Amino acid sequence: MRLQGTLTRSIRAKSLDEGIEILDQAKLPFSVIWMPIKSAEKVAEAIKLMQTRGAPLIGAVGAYGLSMGLKIDSSDFAMDTLYEQLAQTRPTAINLRWALDRVVKAVKPLPPAQRAEAAWQEAQQIAEEDVAINRAIGEHGYNILKALSDKKGGARLNVLTHCNAGWFATLDYGTATAPLYLAHDRGLDVHVYVDETRPRNQGAITAFELSEHGIPNTVIVDNAGGHLMQKGLVDVVIVGTDRVTANGDVCNKIGTYLKALAAFDNNIPFYVALPTPTLDLKTHNGAAIPIEERDSDEVLRINGQPLFVEGTQAANPAFDVTPARLVTGLITEKGVIAANETSIRGLSA
Amino acid sequence: MRLQGTLTRSIRAKSLDEGIEILDQAKLPFSVIWMPIKSAEKVAEAIKLMQTRGAPLIGAVGAYGLSMGLKIDSSDFAMDTLYEQLAQTRPTAINLRWALDRVVKAVKPLPPAQRAEAAWQEAQQIAEEDVAINRAIGEHGYNILKALSDKKGGARLNVLTHCNAGWFATLDYGTATAPLYLAHDRGLDVHVYVDETRPRNQGAITAFELSEHGIPNTVIVDNAGGHLMQKGLVDVVIVGTDRVTANGDVCNKIGTYLKALAAFDNNIPFYVALPTPTLDLKTHNGAAIPIEERDSDEVLRINGQPLFVEGTQAANPAFDVTPARLVTGLITEKGVIAANETSIRGLSA
Repeated sequence: MRLQGTLTRSIRAKSLDEGIEILDQAKLPFSVIWMPIKSAEKVAEAIKLMQTRGAPLIGAVGAYGLSMGLKIDSSDFAMDTLYEQLAQTRPTAINLRWALDRVVKAVKPLPPAQRAEAAWQEAQQIAEEDVAINRAIGEHGYNILKALSDKKGGARLNVLTHCNAGWFATLDYGTATAPLYLAHDRGLDVHVYVDETRPRNQGAITAFELSEHGIPNTVIVDNAGGHLMQKGLVDVVIVGTDRVTANGDVCNKIGTYLKALAAFDNNIPFYVALPTPTLDLKTHNGAAIPIEERDSDEVLRINGQPLFVEGTQAANPAFDVTPARLVTGLITEKGVIAANETSIRGLSA
Repeated sequence: MRLQGTLTRSIRAKSLDEGIEILDQAKLPFSVIWMPIKSAEKVAEAIKLMQTRGAPLIGAVGAYGLSMGLKIDSSDFAMDTLYEQLAQTRPTAINLRWALDRVVKAVKPLPPAQRAEAAWQEAQQIAEEDVAINRAIGEHGYNILKALSDKKGGARLNVLTHCNAGWFATLDYGTATAPLYLAHDRGLDVHVYVDETRPRNQGAITAFELSEHGIPNTVIVDNAGGHLMQKGLVDVVIVGTDRVTANGDVCNKIGTYLKALAAFDNNIPFYVALPTPTLDLKTHNGAAIPIEERDSDEVLRINGQPLFVEGTQAANPAFDVTPARLVTGLITEKGVIAANETSIRGLSA
């Protein structure tokens, strides 16, 4: 997508020798800094410090890191050690482990001298596939936006989104944002209401990336979406997700459920964009998902400054579950499906 | 209520000569500062600078201010001038004008020499009535909480509230908080989830006043309430209101509607506490209420620091309307009634 006037991906891959550049996400949106990375150690550090974030992105970054490590020592022993070091940087990230597994599987049969370059190529492949998946999500989502726009006679289409499921968290396009980028590039008049998304304010990232690509957007507090929907100012809601269970329940950033309720109450379509690996067929419904409780300081302070008097107690659940009954459809790279068990199992079959 | 260990009201009225003390609300909750006020000019300034806030409170403060001005000059001409000066400090505040009207009506028939003292007495009366109204709201709300507590066998009762409809905005007790204070003082095990209430973070005030009185409370971001309700962690929602229309629609701080939707979706009672003058019988329903759009800087900055990159656009609607169908009941000083036209007109008759 466009950043500072230039079309770019979130990883700039040069070569096995020259390494990659990634955006320092800890500094976004206030500073755009490209970090050169040439070693597996630097990759591990960047993931640990959350300088690189987003499930698909850290998978690809991890894969590149493995190739860089193999350049130094490509023995079986070194490869196993490297794998563990990288996988441990974010133990719960399924995508990271999946990408590392894939690289190891591709290069293990090869003679050690060929492994580093082959790993680099596999990382390139993983990156390309991620772009293709997000672009496909974008295409299917675009069709939805186009139809809604046509229904309005081409008048400005207002989309509401929550949190950041944008291109910085992937290689390009993002998930929830992919339909927006395609629609904008193809001339639809799209405007986005961006939820601030307390407590971590990921809306600042979303507003930034949309603005950089030239998509008009307006930030609102998380409280405001329902009112805008009542007033007819929102045509469709699109969000990302961390996990969709077999019955179609959607686990996403805290507050998503409230927007889904408001969309339902006002007959506004509510879509969830996701790559199919996010479908969790082993979990039947959302009630079974454990919800992470994060540090209360995320609520109590902002930029280090206290928002409440000393000693105030806070609770900080990070996610909530939107019941499938409130979801109009799931936008995947394989097409748009209903949020129910039959459709989900059909897609995965 | 209790503040720094002492039971107090938000106005400490001494005498016509010694004046009153009010809390500097611009400094709350981080500093508790009692401002001595002995002149009408000082009252006007405090209202303008929002050092004193809340419809019932500024009505009473304005009335005291009028008495202080009459002490200097109690002629008809001086009284009329004073009336206008005070009324203009917050032109949209119905309650302020109502209180000033009441004082003028009471003292105009008197000889000028008796007017100042009579005005002081009228202000005292207005203050006492406000306390009585809020206490009555508290009594009716207490009955609701007691019944819910009994149903739980006395186990901890979890109440969720949005914004601040607390005692700092009134003389004592507050509106939405009145039932909580009575319940706590009478030994019910009450715990309150306090919405942060972006963009102005009035939850910081609510959490502070509850803590000062000894009521356990937990601050949450505005996004979190729906999730807590899904998890059975909220037994009842009580909020205040700026205006209730004839059909029972409730205009209140932005985001209230989202909490009402979530309460309804989870079969949790949703109550609105209000003094009956807040009933607006001239407006049939909420769609007719103009919603104030406030400065986008309230969204974009916090404590002067930017939350978004320079140039980000923001919308900032200050209120929303919760449809009557989502409201379990209206808690007024005259009793708890259903949020519908028959009940509302019956109460006002």
